[in-house]
Amino acid sequence: MDKLHIVKAGGNLLEDSSIRKEFLQHFAELEGSKILVHGGGKSATALAEKLGLSVQMVEGRRITDAAMLEVAVMTYAGALNKNLVAELQALGCNALGLSGADGNAVQAVKRPVKNIDYGYVGDVTQVNGSLFQNLCKNHTVPVCCALTHDGQGQLLNTNADTMAAVIAQRLSESFAVRLTYCFEKPGVLLDVDDIHSLIPQLTRSRFEELKASGQIVAGMLPKLTNCFTALEGGVAQVRIGEIALLRESIPHTQIVL
Amino acid sequence: MDKLHIVKAGGNLLEDSSIRKEFLQHFAELEGSKILVHGGGKSATALAEKLGLSVQMVEGRRITDAAMLEVAVMTYAGALNKNLVAELQALGCNALGLSGADGNAVQAVKRPVKNIDYGYVGDVTQVNGSLFQNLCKNHTVPVCCALTHDGQGQLLNTNADTMAAVIAQRLSESFAVRLTYCFEKPGVLLDVDDIHSLIPQLTRSRFEELKASGQIVAGMLPKLTNCFTALEGGVAQVRIGEIALLRESIPHTQIVL
Repeated sequence: MDKLHIVKAGGNLLEDSSIRKEFLQHFAELEGSKILVHGGGKSATALAEKLGLSVQMVEGRRITDAAMLEVAVMTYAGALNKNLVAELQALGCNALGLSGADGNAVQAVKRPVKNIDYGYVGDVTQVNGSLFQNLCKNHTVPVCCALTHDGQGQLLNTNADTMAAVIAQRLSESFAVRLTYCFEKPGVLLDVDDIHSLIPQLTRSRFEELKASGQIVAGMLPKLTNCFTALEGGVAQVRIGEIALLRESIPHTQIVL
Repeated sequence: MDKLHIVKAGGNLLEDSSIRKEFLQHFAELEGSKILVHGGGKSATALAEKLGLSVQMVEGRRITDAAMLEVAVMTYAGALNKNLVAELQALGCNALGLSGADGNAVQAVKRPVKNIDYGYVGDVTQVNGSLFQNLCKNHTVPVCCALTHDGQGQLLNTNADTMAAVIAQRLSESFAVRLTYCFEKPGVLLDVDDIHSLIPQLTRSRFEELKASGQIVAGMLPKLTNCFTALEGGVAQVRIGEIALLRESIPHTQIVL
């Protein structure tokens, strides 16, 4: 089975120009087939503020109304995605930007309204494996922003960690997939202010314990849930760590079954 | 030689929701390999105004400073391109959006400063024919916005009529290309207010005469120059007309050598 490396880069990494440059250098140097999935919530919030829109949050989650969706599309698929692609091209990496609508890459359904109406938020239903396979076979590097579509003309906002996990899971049918979540910390920390509290290997049962005892911070919960879903769905390897992890084996968190 | 239909749609068509819907329906129904190239200057101007940026024009041409380039990227590659792609997907057309940076589709150089500094404007140097061929072979329909890149990480703004012409010219090496410029008039009119003054066939020598006598309005000059460049560069057929031309043979202007 051919190898495929899927890398998720958080918005924080990409919005600091020196970290972004270093990250893209590392990513461009990765050998073999690869895919980049990126976030960008901070840029979207900044544009929304410039346009005088107020960002609605409920329980730490952004509510995507029509105006915020347009801002997300302009930021994620426009400014962020196209500049990342142009910068990767300059590094000799043949990047090609995709939203979930492009080539029907990632289809979703608008999240049903229960207690909270999240607005134009998509829950992924289908990943177009053959599109990604064809691009990789032609030595093209997909750069995916976290937007999906419903197949009926509606774009939808989807969590970037989830995008990376579902693409990794689908492509595990054809590739041995390594999935790396890059962010600003060396991995999952027991004490968020102490990098020496890094958990080198995290099992599902340990994760459930830490979750129950409140030792994992809220923001990490969905990320880790995505990691376990990916691993249980057939992804060969799932890692969380700093960007240097793309270049060399430094301490990080390995997700294990 | 396989046939390929390249359609350029002006921003005016796409910014009116009922005309846009009709246009996309016609485009989706076209059989065989096809490519859509779209403009969008009016949307960019609207976003610039919302952000409090002033649009600088010199001799009817937009000056693209860094802030306007960002607006163009957000509008053309973001809001417009992704919504067009999602709407075409809903019509059963497997659209995939591209800027010139994606897959190194269209490379350009920043226009040298002579009398006027146009800013981040790109003059096309190279079209990646094999990228478009691969996409068409895989029954994917490229939807191109009018942005290019310089191969060194810089995105550039390029005229959409020119984008369509250079892509058509390059792909004429592998396809019998029909290039159709769709806009709000039935073709080139001798009197812009009288649709009965349509010129059904326009040769280069007649064009030069009309240009010299001032009978062709300023806005049509670059469009027609692009048409002749494409035709002289090997494009099999170049037409200008209304969107219904995609569905049936209605009166239009045929560019001839």
